[in-house]
Amino acid sequence: MRNIKIIIQYDGTRYQGWQRLSDSKSTIQEKIESVLSTLVGEEVQLVGSGRTDGGVHAEKQTANFHTRSTVSCEEVLEHCTRFLPADIVVREAEEVAQDFHSRFKVREKIYRYTIDNGLHHNVFSRKYALHLPQRLEIETMREAAKVFVGQHDFRSFTKLQTKTKSTVRTVFSIEIVEKYPFLYIRICGNGFLYKMVRLMVGALIDAGRGQLNAIQIKDILRKKDKNNPIEPAPPHGLCLEEVVY
Amino acid sequence: MRNIKIIIQYDGTRYQGWQRLSDSKSTIQEKIESVLSTLVGEEVQLVGSGRTDGGVHAEKQTANFHTRSTVSCEEVLEHCTRFLPADIVVREAEEVAQDFHSRFKVREKIYRYTIDNGLHHNVFSRKYALHLPQRLEIETMREAAKVFVGQHDFRSFTKLQTKTKSTVRTVFSIEIVEKYPFLYIRICGNGFLYKMVRLMVGALIDAGRGQLNAIQIKDILRKKDKNNPIEPAPPHGLCLEEVVY
Repeated sequence: MRNIKIIIQYDGTRYQGWQRLSDSKSTIQEKIESVLSTLVGEEVQLVGSGRTDGGVHAEKQTANFHTRSTVSCEEVLEHCTRFLPADIVVREAEEVAQDFHSRFKVREKIYRYTIDNGLHHNVFSRKYALHLPQRLEIETMREAAKVFVGQHDFRSFTKLQTKTKSTVRTVFSIEIVEKYPFLYIRICGNGFLYKMVRLMVGALIDAGRGQLNAIQIKDILRKKDKNNPIEPAPPHGLCLEEVVY
Repeated sequence: MRNIKIIIQYDGTRYQGWQRLSDSKSTIQEKIESVLSTLVGEEVQLVGSGRTDGGVHAEKQTANFHTRSTVSCEEVLEHCTRFLPADIVVREAEEVAQDFHSRFKVREKIYRYTIDNGLHHNVFSRKYALHLPQRLEIETMREAAKVFVGQHDFRSFTKLQTKTKSTVRTVFSIEIVEKYPFLYIRICGNGFLYKMVRLMVGALIDAGRGQLNAIQIKDILRKKDKNNPIEPAPPHGLCLEEVVY
């Protein structure tokens, strides 16, 4: 069995997210698996680095699959280019060691959240940026972001139901870059819980609007309680930038 | 009668172009006129700086309209934001002198054509850039571009049928900027004929591919004959960047 790693860029607008669903064909995993299966002549099971929610985008999502076939990586790329819809592109394919696993071997994930802070929304980024015309206090957001950096139990910042798995994660850095009218929040960590990035961004936006401060966010984090006033930021502003192994 | 000037950004993907058509509601002019008419309570006739073809985008298209109503420019902006679809945004509105005319008073128009020269197309710019994975000789394109600069009879570079109007235009500059994988062709001139920018870009792409050189393009220009081998570049890579008065 060969192990093929692929790097995928997608516009998540039309999809119900990465993860294959039993009752739907409109997930990114499903689309790619179905195209790869016709190429290799056997059922392909893709292992992604993690799920992305419906509407979330990716610059470089990573996945791998095992196959008995002898197709070359060039054929994988060509076949995907030919048969995938224009909003999903497999940009790289390479054969990797047997033990490579897209989820278990992740060292770092980088997410970017884009806010369009202009008075009017920019039509060209309307599907890739959250439009927030209100004034945001960037320095307050940066102060609040520091609360998340480091190793914490992020139970307050997930919508995950299970109580069995660990909710401890490490956030390496949060960078807030202004390029008016856009504001980019770049979050690096060793992994993220279900809806964690969007909940963190939701808290940072509340901080920017003066509705929450760093002390209150620290308090919510410390309480490890999902019942808190923070709303996840909408999915369309979020993009999985890169997965580092 | 008051004269109101507006600046409009639009994603042309869904539209048959700027110009109102008798048999269709899907033009940008039609959409804006219909929204403005409900605001001012009388029929609005917008004068645009010029037409853009179906699928062509605009950063700052300019138009004006006369009205008897007393609505403020803030109301124009708010009403447009509320009732226009998300792919058309009126970004500025101001009352101007009676003699301001969006078409006749144009001093300079700036168009940008975007080529995605990466091996695989970028999903986020698939509607705003022409994907050309082939190698392009940029210096040859720059040489060819010089042919167009200056005052010329551009009859060979239009699909216009009429022979009565002048086909002489002045191109002030053509700049080709590389930001891999993107290539931007920025064309400034005092005005452009029907399909002229896309035909010029088509010629420059042919030059970049080694299929045409500067001498041949000069020859085509000199012949003033529409029957030539140049094909217009597809509309979705083109964007009206700005209109200067």
